[in-house]
Amino acid sequence: MTSQIETRLQELNINLPQVSAPVANYLGYVRTGNLLIISGQLPMVDGKIICQGQLGKDVSIINAQAAAKQCAINILAQAKAACDGDLNKIARLVRLGGFVNAAADFQDHAQVINGASDFVCEVLGEKGKHARAAVGCSSLPFGAAVEIEATFELEA
Amino acid sequence: MTSQIETRLQELNINLPQVSAPVANYLGYVRTGNLLIISGQLPMVDGKIICQGQLGKDVSIINAQAAAKQCAINILAQAKAACDGDLNKIARLVRLGGFVNAAADFQDHAQVINGASDFVCEVLGEKGKHARAAVGCSSLPFGAAVEIEATFELEA
Amino acid sequence: MTSQIETRLQELNINLPQVSAPVANYLGYVRTGNLLIISGQLPMVDGKIICQGQLGKDVSIINAQAAAKQCAINILAQAKAACDGDLNKIARLVRLGGFVNAAADFQDHAQVINGASDFVCEVLGEKGKHARAAVGCSSLPFGAAVEIEATFELEA
Repeated sequence: MTSQIETRLQELNINLPQVSAPVANYLGYVRTGNLLIISGQLPMVDGKIICQGQLGKDVSIINAQAAAKQCAINILAQAKAACDGDLNKIARLVRLGGFVNAAADFQDHAQVINGASDFVCEVLGEKGKHARAAVGCSSLPFGAAVEIEATFELEA
Repeated sequence: MTSQIETRLQELNINLPQVSAPVANYLGYVRTGNLLIISGQLPMVDGKIICQGQLGKDVSIINAQAAAKQCAINILAQAKAACDGDLNKIARLVRLGGFVNAAADFQDHAQVINGASDFVCEVLGEKGKHARAAVGCSSLPFGAAVEIEATFELEA
Repeated sequence: MTSQIETRLQELNINLPQVSAPVANYLGYVRTGNLLIISGQLPMVDGKIICQGQLGKDVSIINAQAAAKQCAINILAQAKAACDGDLNKIARLVRLGGFVNAAADFQDHAQVINGASDFVCEVLGEKGKHARAAVGCSSLPFGAAVEIEATFELEA
């Protein structure tokens, strides 16, 4: 049975990428009890960062919102792998931690992370509503403009 | 029955603000099991940031400590809303995540976040003692000097 | 009975430091259910930060990796205190939150935090594999080059 979430992803024309096997001493996700902790995801497509640079310097809010959405797509891909392919096992999204590569005078971190928050709610509906923090980082891995981590609650 | 925590807030002359209904795709808090996750709170009073700027540049430690305390007041307001008004449902504070808008040579992040840590212990007593992280951010939403997120454990 | 983890620490010639009693209104760790939350740890030895400065400016990756390893040693020391000295009570490491004091053009945050990730896996084996986030901070407490927080799952 195709899940509602998969149907919604198809309607939105989103293909979740395959998650590659971890090569280092950390994992894309860890489950503990009913909590699923997803590692910080970068705006990566086919192994390439799609949005590099710093908000308030050389990245526009609209491009950073698209990057935040890509982080969220990669979060869902990790969640799907954690759920053995069945996104119905997601009870709800609990939290997003949003890190924005941002200059000292940048103030619109919330707008950037909305690119992820809006997308997860589009896909997950009420289950997608979450607590979050959005902060400015002096730099991020590989020069990414955004990094987002997540916590889900899974069905018991 | 008035809770001990409410009595303590009255003694300290603190009125927890009303939490407004969320307008975006994220929430002020999410409960999962016995854990209550509170979104990053800014030093906001009546919709206005009371302390903007950067530590080590144009904000004093004493003003930033007051801002951290305001973040903690807003955290308690969210917790109260999550507990349907009954702060007795709080088993304990588990963690504060403290984000300080800070210049490269600033070193006193711990002192700033103490403004929140000391306040929650004043109000919650032993239940207020928590794990925490305190770090420096290149910037924060709306130019705030401090942002703090929290995790509580609720009574079963 | 000496735990496997203690044996591994001995083989690696690592002495976990004694954790001093908390002097402020926050704690080195908090347990909630089976989760153990460890406060952000600095690269501190005998009360002194062993690696100060900023990546991409005046700290080398190799020195920052050693600092990240020291943060992880201090995390294990806190975990041991939380477990009344018995590291066998650790079911697994769930998450590391890695904060790197980093200049705007620094891109190798992941490599720095590997200093901690590789160490915890050396000591804890499969139980050490974790989710993580690695981000750049504009500054850190006491000028530290790295700060790392952790979440463990404990045996029921």
